[in-house]
Amino acid sequence: MSPTPLLHRPASPQPRLDVWSDVTAIRRRSPLVLNITNFVVMNLTANALLALGASPVMAHAPEELDEMIDLAQAVVINIGTLSREWIDAMERAVVAARRRGIPVVIDPVGSGATRFRTETSRRLLSLASPAILRGNASEIRSLAGSNGSTKGVDSVYESVDAIAAGQWLAKEYGCTVSISGRTDFIVDATGRIGIQNGSDLMPSVTGMGCTASALTGAFSAVNSSPFHAAAHAMALMGVAGELAAKKCSGPGTFVPHFLDTLHNLDEATLIALVNPTAN
Amino acid sequence: MSPTPLLHRPASPQPRLDVWSDVTAIRRRSPLVLNITNFVVMNLTANALLALGASPVMAHAPEELDEMIDLAQAVVINIGTLSREWIDAMERAVVAARRRGIPVVIDPVGSGATRFRTETSRRLLSLASPAILRGNASEIRSLAGSNGSTKGVDSVYESVDAIAAGQWLAKEYGCTVSISGRTDFIVDATGRIGIQNGSDLMPSVTGMGCTASALTGAFSAVNSSPFHAAAHAMALMGVAGELAAKKCSGPGTFVPHFLDTLHNLDEATLIALVNPTAN
Amino acid sequence: MSPTPLLHRPASPQPRLDVWSDVTAIRRRSPLVLNITNFVVMNLTANALLALGASPVMAHAPEELDEMIDLAQAVVINIGTLSREWIDAMERAVVAARRRGIPVVIDPVGSGATRFRTETSRRLLSLASPAILRGNASEIRSLAGSNGSTKGVDSVYESVDAIAAGQWLAKEYGCTVSISGRTDFIVDATGRIGIQNGSDLMPSVTGMGCTASALTGAFSAVNSSPFHAAAHAMALMGVAGELAAKKCSGPGTFVPHFLDTLHNLDEATLIALVNPTAN
Repeated sequence: MSPTPLLHRPASPQPRLDVWSDVTAIRRRSPLVLNITNFVVMNLTANALLALGASPVMAHAPEELDEMIDLAQAVVINIGTLSREWIDAMERAVVAARRRGIPVVIDPVGSGATRFRTETSRRLLSLASPAILRGNASEIRSLAGSNGSTKGVDSVYESVDAIAAGQWLAKEYGCTVSISGRTDFIVDATGRIGIQNGSDLMPSVTGMGCTASALTGAFSAVNSSPFHAAAHAMALMGVAGELAAKKCSGPGTFVPHFLDTLHNLDEATLIALVNPTAN
Repeated sequence: MSPTPLLHRPASPQPRLDVWSDVTAIRRRSPLVLNITNFVVMNLTANALLALGASPVMAHAPEELDEMIDLAQAVVINIGTLSREWIDAMERAVVAARRRGIPVVIDPVGSGATRFRTETSRRLLSLASPAILRGNASEIRSLAGSNGSTKGVDSVYESVDAIAAGQWLAKEYGCTVSISGRTDFIVDATGRIGIQNGSDLMPSVTGMGCTASALTGAFSAVNSSPFHAAAHAMALMGVAGELAAKKCSGPGTFVPHFLDTLHNLDEATLIALVNPTAN
Repeated sequence: MSPTPLLHRPASPQPRLDVWSDVTAIRRRSPLVLNITNFVVMNLTANALLALGASPVMAHAPEELDEMIDLAQAVVINIGTLSREWIDAMERAVVAARRRGIPVVIDPVGSGATRFRTETSRRLLSLASPAILRGNASEIRSLAGSNGSTKGVDSVYESVDAIAAGQWLAKEYGCTVSISGRTDFIVDATGRIGIQNGSDLMPSVTGMGCTASALTGAFSAVNSSPFHAAAHAMALMGVAGELAAKKCSGPGTFVPHFLDTLHNLDEATLIALVNPTAN
């Protein structure tokens, strides 16, 4: 992989991420995050946003989307169980968010598995601004036209293999790209950062990626930098995942402990565990 | 706030609520509760009804609603993720329930946030009888045309601030109104009662209000007084919430303990904790 | 009940079930299981498939179903919250799966409660091959035209009372029939087996039957015998249920422990507990 420039390159080899100030801002302001997401994860992502301190709302009817977006501080679009009617709602929401200047997070679940998903994701990306694209390596590669073989909704690539695709997408669409994996990478047109947190249990829980996208929405509501909002959300996901993994006995008991951790996390614990990397 | 008459005013300052006899009736008869509800909470409310001993069914196709309602002892309508097609199902169900004389619980999730929600809730209320309206203070105020500012689906008012609106709605629509909050208030055209149970964790869990509505459906299936069914359901919610809060470490572990409590609760524990108030 | 022939009748009175070799095959191959299922259980069944080691995908748009089925190793159809549009997707998926020769599991949730459900289930059965029909006694009886009184989605019959109906369906549709209950029975045109595992808590948890169907999909993806795939899935469900019941304190804490058990189960524990019966 060719070297890429690092945004905000720090003096030390490890970049600093001020995740905590965003967490306190979310808890204090409780931003309203509008989610147009899939049936599988709605309960989980609503609970994750609530546990963090944000205020989730799920709505998709064309009759009310404009009014909902007038109330919202961020919009999260997730195509996990898409259909024609829901795509209409997603496009409408993305356009309304752009008009109001509020951030949009797009989760292209299963992009690459079917043309319907790939094309829907590209169209949403082309309509959204400012946008954060949050997906796994297969999904990100597929959107860039790389060999994006996706096995259903799970990635068959390492996140590092999608950095070049992410950089291309960041330039093509003017967006920030958040690639989840063993190391999470956040890239935009000018830089990148990695996050080395998380637990091996997380791929065995449905909707962890979708939850990362939902939390990215909450962070983007309080941090005007999409790049930092995305990085902070992935760092929090990873740290909460590590802490929950220590308390649970498998992917089933992981989930309630993960939500507890989002709710109870304190500054010292967060700072001690956040592990960003320039590479 | 002007003083309001109390239904069944007791000799002592604390009214009595015989929640337990309804709980045993639900466990014994296992009433079928038809839910037309939102995608976020379907799993939770089905589990809450099962844990309590009721028999939940979720169905919304026009082709089968009449037959389902012929089997049901109560109907719960919740507009959390409404759309045109689902409203048609809700209206059809409400009309069929009225024809059969079985109780309907209406949960106007997010009423006041958008006109679509406010108007849908009012129309459902106008069609339903006997009906119990179960919402938070913002939702109840919005339906009465008060300054019903709702922030998404979460209330920005205390429940006490919605009592007058609830009383107006009770008279206007001939319904019982159950207002959830730190103190829950149940009002109808002639009286009111308050319930001081619950846990601060409950607003951090998605679908607790929706679960209250679902359980209200189960109680209304075994208690012919909508006023008492609503009060008993809120008392049980609050007591189960208190007990679960003691066993959990946050909003994630709260949910499984809450469901366990609904399933395991005994008479002595319930009676010791139920805390109604005349004010 | 008249005696019925036993497939692969063993020398000993207790038949042997090699559940473990399928479990290891699922963990190793991680088969993609396409689910067109109901809103109530999507999260649970996705998590159960992931915990077992399979790769779930939920999709229902006509624009992508053929491509998804080209990627899938099994299809699970569940009519729990059916509507006209979803039935179209289910029929399309069943036909595509048949063309590709991949197994289909059909869960006729609530069949017998409404004609819409009974007729939809029969039509799906008539289109699917090879198919495993997985339901409770009321559902199975209703499909065979027996007195199939169903109370909503819960059975009012013992599984043993549906064996004759299952045998009739197996012959009529050329399918395998998996009847869940206190004893689970798997029947096909030439034999039957019973499984005596499980916990009394399971009927108090929503979606346990749907989860059995989803896991049956995973087993059918790695075992070419629908009869054995169905038997192995029910045995695993029952064993995991028994183990989870020992660790939990009610139906709420049951679920996370059930998922943990699917993830952590080892061969010795499984073999020690599996309890098949010829009768």
